Amino acid sequence: MTEDRSTTALATYLSDWAARVHARLDQLLADDELRVHQAMRYSVLAGGKRLRPVLAIAAHEAVGGAGEQVLDPACALELIHTYSLIHDDLPAMDDADLRRAKATSHKVYGEAIAILAGDALLPLAFEIIAATVDRFPAERVVRVVAEVARAVGPGGMVAGQDLDLDAEGRRVDRPHLERIHRLKTGALLETSLRLGAILGGANDDQLARLTRYGSSIGLAFQVVDDLLDVRSDAATLGKNPTDESKSKSTYPSILGVEASQALALKLVRDARGEVTGMGRAGEILGSLADFVVSRTS
Amino acid sequence: MTEDRSTTALATYLSDWAARVHARLDQLLADDELRVHQAMRYSVLAGGKRLRPVLAIAAHEAVGGAGEQVLDPACALELIHTYSLIHDDLPAMDDADLRRAKATSHKVYGEAIAILAGDALLPLAFEIIAATVDRFPAERVVRVVAEVARAVGPGGMVAGQDLDLDAEGRRVDRPHLERIHRLKTGALLETSLRLGAILGGANDDQLARLTRYGSSIGLAFQVVDDLLDVRSDAATLGKNPTDESKSKSTYPSILGVEASQALALKLVRDARGEVTGMGRAGEILGSLADFVVSRTS
Repeated sequence: MTEDRSTTALATYLSDWAARVHARLDQLLADDELRVHQAMRYSVLAGGKRLRPVLAIAAHEAVGGAGEQVLDPACALELIHTYSLIHDDLPAMDDADLRRAKATSHKVYGEAIAILAGDALLPLAFEIIAATVDRFPAERVVRVVAEVARAVGPGGMVAGQDLDLDAEGRRVDRPHLERIHRLKTGALLETSLRLGAILGGANDDQLARLTRYGSSIGLAFQVVDDLLDVRSDAATLGKNPTDESKSKSTYPSILGVEASQALALKLVRDARGEVTGMGRAGEILGSLADFVVSRTS
Repeated sequence: MTEDRSTTALATYLSDWAARVHARLDQLLADDELRVHQAMRYSVLAGGKRLRPVLAIAAHEAVGGAGEQVLDPACALELIHTYSLIHDDLPAMDDADLRRAKATSHKVYGEAIAILAGDALLPLAFEIIAATVDRFPAERVVRVVAEVARAVGPGGMVAGQDLDLDAEGRRVDRPHLERIHRLKTGALLETSLRLGAILGGANDDQLARLTRYGSSIGLAFQVVDDLLDVRSDAATLGKNPTDESKSKSTYPSILGVEASQALALKLVRDARGEVTGMGRAGEILGSLADFVVSRTS
């Protein structure tokens, strides 16, 4: 495909699946008078790129599956991502007032309900993943449960958040920064691809390639995030540029802006290399890697 | 068995398994410099009756399994229980300073790490449950994941905590109070028995009886908790008598002390009835029901 055609194909793929993910999330979340249920809906349905679900769906298609079949577990990944945002934004953590151009959960519902909303989204995600045993072999489902749990647990996302908080206000070196990001955001991104691939019955080579793809775009995503923080302010980002204001180490602050841009481009090239020859879904994943470095928000 | 012999048998069973659960929890939790890992160890290894693990183990034995085989998923239940205590104790929730006669997690590690410790314990539990696929059929493991997730999710424990916070400072009626407790503590207790039973390949009748047993002792446990709160103070309980100080409705405040005691005894009789004829483990479960109403802390 030419650059233009692939960009259009990606945009259509992203917007189509984002819409279906949104509609399905709306169905999966209880809508009653309970405050915690309303808080869950508020944050989950606030929008966002639905990047993790789309990665899972594309990975599933890349190994020969039908994307529709993993819509639910893909939504589960978005629930987990949203839980992590709600808790990260809490006063005791990043103390953020804005998220996706809206007031953060604790600003609207209070701290107790915000904590509970996160606490509920996480097990709901596992319940939804477990329910896919109606269409996938139980062995695959159990493997996915184990991998997702590991990615977001004490050796994954939570460790990353701990290290990230710990790094506030002091300079960390590049290996440490990379470790933080691999744990805090990389692990779940990588697992999103693995979820789609494992449920689709990927062979070892496919799984390894999609995992490396996920690892590369996960890190690229973070480098670009850091670059955007340098260039943006709260108004255009729709969230507080907390990293700068809390003087966290970032790729630009450690490597400089130019070297960070070069790193992001290299990671994207690496990612693209992993998904060549994986059909239309592989092309989508390739375009998605480009999108990661070219995005402006 | 006579009363005395069954009490001794139960005491031995409880202390033996509690010791093995404790030792296994110690192995399952990372012990390194990460603050969140230390916070997890602090709360999980602080002690406690290990009631949920023992219920899972006894239920597994009651349907013919070997308790040892469910030691890990039983430990997972304790991790979930501990996560819920850490988050319930947070300043934004019950704002408790003491738990099991020790300072609460946020008092020792700060709020951020306390929140993260809970956030890590929950997925670790699912990771441990998923790992039991090395010894149980994957279908059973997936079912347990689904049930545990449902019990602690937005329609279970979290809903109970929301309703409980919402009921602070106002009078609720008995059906509402019962709903709160069934969700907040009953669901996980009941699921503890179901976990052991399902992994042991229980038939429908066994599963239904153990579920009703769990439901009855779960509620009995709460009624007795309320009665203990009336009679105790922080010194003897080792925790803050928050319910009284925050003027929550309790069984004694709604039914009176005598009727609450009678209710607890009736629930225990119901529970005992469900586990007769389930062999030695059934007798243990019967004695455990008695223990629930006779406990003093």
